[in-house]
Amino acid sequence: MGRETWAIGVDLGGTKVEVAAVDAGGTILQRLKQPTHVETGPDSIMAAIAAMIKQVREHGPQTPPAGVGVGVAGQVNAATGVVRFAPNLNWREVPLQDRLQTDLTLPVGVTNDVRAATWGEWRHGAGQGAEDLICLFIGTGIGGGVVSGGRMLEGATNTAGELGHITTDLNGPPCTCGHRGCLEALAGGWAIARRAREAIGDAPAAGQAFLRAAGLKEPVAPEDINAAVVAAAAHAHDPLARLIVDEVARALIAGTVSLINAFNPSRLILGGGVMQGLPELTDRIGAGIRRFALNAATEALEVLPARLKGDAGVVGAATLAIQSFAPR
Amino acid sequence: MGRETWAIGVDLGGTKVEVAAVDAGGTILQRLKQPTHVETGPDSIMAAIAAMIKQVREHGPQTPPAGVGVGVAGQVNAATGVVRFAPNLNWREVPLQDRLQTDLTLPVGVTNDVRAATWGEWRHGAGQGAEDLICLFIGTGIGGGVVSGGRMLEGATNTAGELGHITTDLNGPPCTCGHRGCLEALAGGWAIARRAREAIGDAPAAGQAFLRAAGLKEPVAPEDINAAVVAAAAHAHDPLARLIVDEVARALIAGTVSLINAFNPSRLILGGGVMQGLPELTDRIGAGIRRFALNAATEALEVLPARLKGDAGVVGAATLAIQSFAPR
Repeated sequence: MGRETWAIGVDLGGTKVEVAAVDAGGTILQRLKQPTHVETGPDSIMAAIAAMIKQVREHGPQTPPAGVGVGVAGQVNAATGVVRFAPNLNWREVPLQDRLQTDLTLPVGVTNDVRAATWGEWRHGAGQGAEDLICLFIGTGIGGGVVSGGRMLEGATNTAGELGHITTDLNGPPCTCGHRGCLEALAGGWAIARRAREAIGDAPAAGQAFLRAAGLKEPVAPEDINAAVVAAAAHAHDPLARLIVDEVARALIAGTVSLINAFNPSRLILGGGVMQGLPELTDRIGAGIRRFALNAATEALEVLPARLKGDAGVVGAATLAIQSFAPR
Repeated sequence: MGRETWAIGVDLGGTKVEVAAVDAGGTILQRLKQPTHVETGPDSIMAAIAAMIKQVREHGPQTPPAGVGVGVAGQVNAATGVVRFAPNLNWREVPLQDRLQTDLTLPVGVTNDVRAATWGEWRHGAGQGAEDLICLFIGTGIGGGVVSGGRMLEGATNTAGELGHITTDLNGPPCTCGHRGCLEALAGGWAIARRAREAIGDAPAAGQAFLRAAGLKEPVAPEDINAAVVAAAAHAHDPLARLIVDEVARALIAGTVSLINAFNPSRLILGGGVMQGLPELTDRIGAGIRRFALNAATEALEVLPARLKGDAGVVGAATLAIQSFAPR
């Protein structure tokens, strides 16, 4: 399998679809990005994806692609490639794999978007060469992927790796999932925003200083307060923002300590928008893990930032297609 | 590999050594148990184990055993069978596998005791036939084993499955590991005893009622208060004991929700002394998981009590030996 082997990777989310031609070395050869028109429904979106794939294929290498890999923000039946539930797309039981295979006459594999991104980081990013790794993507929500003994964990119903929903503070604030104190409810982007809005409401003077430090001009609407604003204010040394970041760091340390003790990986790879906004957290989390996780579980551990950033999804999806469909 | 295939399983803990002849169906054919004389040191203990194995072998089947499996309460190098650290035995870097192999001229495999017990439950207990399961043993401490996709997870340095040290309450009480709010620090036997002693100290009248309900006679020493006493008082409807059991149940629900969301098993098997003392917790934990874990992660889930009880260790260790060493 040489560099001439390539595949098409698709990253399908609630706001955008990205399609890329990716070679066996993980290099993106061609790419296309479009907004996802969720309101048009599954048929129209699948038709748009097929059209994007045809376009990328026309401008890609002259050899035929090994196949198509799709990472979708939702729950996937691994055997059938049916998207069982994708809340951001408002999809239920959509036969994405069958539909694209029929349209394209190419083999198609479908997986969860976070797992696709984990494939990307594992094969072509910060996880290269590791047999035991965890990717934790801390964005608006928190998700992850786990490789153990050289295999991606799938679980009994293909949902292994819901690492945002490990209970980190059993008395903590409510989570969108119906439980409370999930890692995501303490350190996900939406939770950071919630915490900042509450803190600003509770302490108006400190809140004013926070907004000034973040460079926000009055009037400020609640939806203007997000994790990026907190990061900006913290980087401008605002005490309230720094307190919030300290709390986020503490939650991420507690949550990753759980993961290290449970899975014993040799690499913990931290990605997602919150980590990109607060890159200093990587070292803080690493130091916290070394302090609080079991010594035996951290002997071989490296804590690293994700390398592929926004490309992890398409690169990983294409990598999975090459691995599944390319002749050896 | 028929029923005539058998192996020797050893369960080596800080208080007792158990050696058994076990057939390929998981049936114990012969067994011996002795106290562990920790004070005599590794050489003497290994000699005693070798003598016990010889004795069991003499009274076991006439065919030679496939080999010996040892589960030891400590951290093991999987490649060399060296016991790296076993605090209850006061062992560091003890070459258990080499020593027993030399003494016995049989192949010997060494693993962690909790992982051996997980092998036992997986192959011959409540986990039979499952490809994705978690065994959680809630005794004085809490440990576990995880099977995912039909494979026992080992991790990068063979410590995967330290499920007692997932952070469940990041503001919780200190754990013996140096962190705080670990599942074990909330629901392990030692933590239940600590909580009961504190509660009795804080509320003397309620404490007196608790001690009467548990059937303890004055004078009561602090070490008389343990998880079994709490279970006895709770079963006698003592309000303080029931409050403590409610807290334990809540912690175990939060912790197992984390495990279900992270690993997505089809079976969660609950064992250990605390579960044997409070068997009603199995259904409570199952109901809590169904309420608080992600729906997609619980679709295929059964929550079951462990079946092999105290035999899981020797049966599992022998099973591992048969699997590793028996001709196929």
